[in-house]
Amino acid sequence: MADIISEHRCHGGIQAFYRHESSTIGLPMRFSVFHPPQERSEMVPVLFWLSGLTCTEETFPIKANAQRLAAQYGLMLVAPDTSPRNTGIEGEDRDWDLGSGAGFYLDATAEPWRRHYRMESWITEELFGLVRDEFNADTERAGIFGHSMGGHGALTLALRHPDRYRSVSAFAPIAAPSRCPWGEKAFTAYLGEDREAWREHDASELMRKRRAPFPQGILIDQGLDDKFLKEQLLPLQFEQACIDAGQPLTMRLHEGYDHGYYFIASFIDDHLAFHQRILGG
Amino acid sequence: MADIISEHRCHGGIQAFYRHESSTIGLPMRFSVFHPPQERSEMVPVLFWLSGLTCTEETFPIKANAQRLAAQYGLMLVAPDTSPRNTGIEGEDRDWDLGSGAGFYLDATAEPWRRHYRMESWITEELFGLVRDEFNADTERAGIFGHSMGGHGALTLALRHPDRYRSVSAFAPIAAPSRCPWGEKAFTAYLGEDREAWREHDASELMRKRRAPFPQGILIDQGLDDKFLKEQLLPLQFEQACIDAGQPLTMRLHEGYDHGYYFIASFIDDHLAFHQRILGG
Repeated sequence: MADIISEHRCHGGIQAFYRHESSTIGLPMRFSVFHPPQERSEMVPVLFWLSGLTCTEETFPIKANAQRLAAQYGLMLVAPDTSPRNTGIEGEDRDWDLGSGAGFYLDATAEPWRRHYRMESWITEELFGLVRDEFNADTERAGIFGHSMGGHGALTLALRHPDRYRSVSAFAPIAAPSRCPWGEKAFTAYLGEDREAWREHDASELMRKRRAPFPQGILIDQGLDDKFLKEQLLPLQFEQACIDAGQPLTMRLHEGYDHGYYFIASFIDDHLAFHQRILGG
Repeated sequence: MADIISEHRCHGGIQAFYRHESSTIGLPMRFSVFHPPQERSEMVPVLFWLSGLTCTEETFPIKANAQRLAAQYGLMLVAPDTSPRNTGIEGEDRDWDLGSGAGFYLDATAEPWRRHYRMESWITEELFGLVRDEFNADTERAGIFGHSMGGHGALTLALRHPDRYRSVSAFAPIAAPSRCPWGEKAFTAYLGEDREAWREHDASELMRKRRAPFPQGILIDQGLDDKFLKEQLLPLQFEQACIDAGQPLTMRLHEGYDHGYYFIASFIDDHLAFHQRILGG
């Protein structure tokens, strides 16, 4: 059972914050849920949002303004925290791009992270089941999207669990983490030195193997003034993989936009409409 | 001249943050501006947002999602910080409801606040002139709105300067500060013990004197689950004053909504539409 931290009426629905004892993580975990007004009387589709480095379950509900259209469509929005917290692992809070706030949406296999850093299982199994069992989420109609590290998470979890997620999109995703400094640092720590294991958590590598699992397409938005574009994000690696795999993709490059939430809020409505077309009805 | 702290593309316009050396305050002051895309080629109406206790110039652009409709309408949004900062006044940071973050949108007359705490003159004169002279703001079409302490600010500055502001609205305003603990504490500190002086900064008192200066009406939204409603906000004091003055008013009481920005974001579009009807074209 999830405990309510707080609830706020929002656009006719409820923006809620929860904490639950995660058996997967072995610690309490936090997540937020926007409950659209339609959920009071019917099952609603559910869209998971994965945030970027340093964010929490609060970032998306505060900054993205997804609730407005989600309330119109009747979409539940679930935003998990970005890592386990207070694990006792030495140095967990030392770097902003590793450990706390930087779980990278995978199950760590290397010490000292492997015991608690199991974000993939938490999100795709335990939290997925929780919103199905405790709320009025129709998990047969589930989608996933995210930003930066969370864009990496959305793409990789969708590609690894296409039975779970029927729609996927991303803002400025870390699209080829095996080849960028953020990804190399995180994968080395969480997965060890064996680069073969990294390929299973790299969206561009996964796409080549999976042979176009999303026939209704994938939507990616990317700002051209994003300071991380060239060194960390590498969206063309993913686009090339989609070409190789025959995966329909809409890649939109936007002049002047940076890496932050003003960029996300500017295009969030397009992403909600994209998911609604696939999940709605 | 205002210095740019940062700029972010947003909904086709620019969300910008500025600092300038305020001669009125005698210290650097910060404010944010949303520049709609239309401002590149024409003069645009300008809408001032005043935030509540503890907020800064960042709160509104991050949390309210006003940029979406402002970009459609071509409205400039200006959000000043809520007080002088780093004044050196002893105890300025001690209380969350007095001093830093709690300027109450008036010119203090009592020591030790009177030298720097001149928010009314800063906003209605210096900042008003700055956006006219440095940006493409058509200050003949200016409106003002705000939340809580900023709702008090919007109503009182509009009533004290009806030549400046053609439209005014508020979310959960401190509507009769002479009669509530927040207002009594702030007015005693900033204006002294003479309650006659307080009447000039109390929206309900001002309304009775001003005889309906806004013939196109005033819009107020108030959440019924707002924990400050009964003790601090007192909207019916203002409504009674509007009745006495013959001032058209739309007072909307919303079931389930609290005092926070999820409430504001839920109804921000209605406020922008209200101001646009008066200021637009």
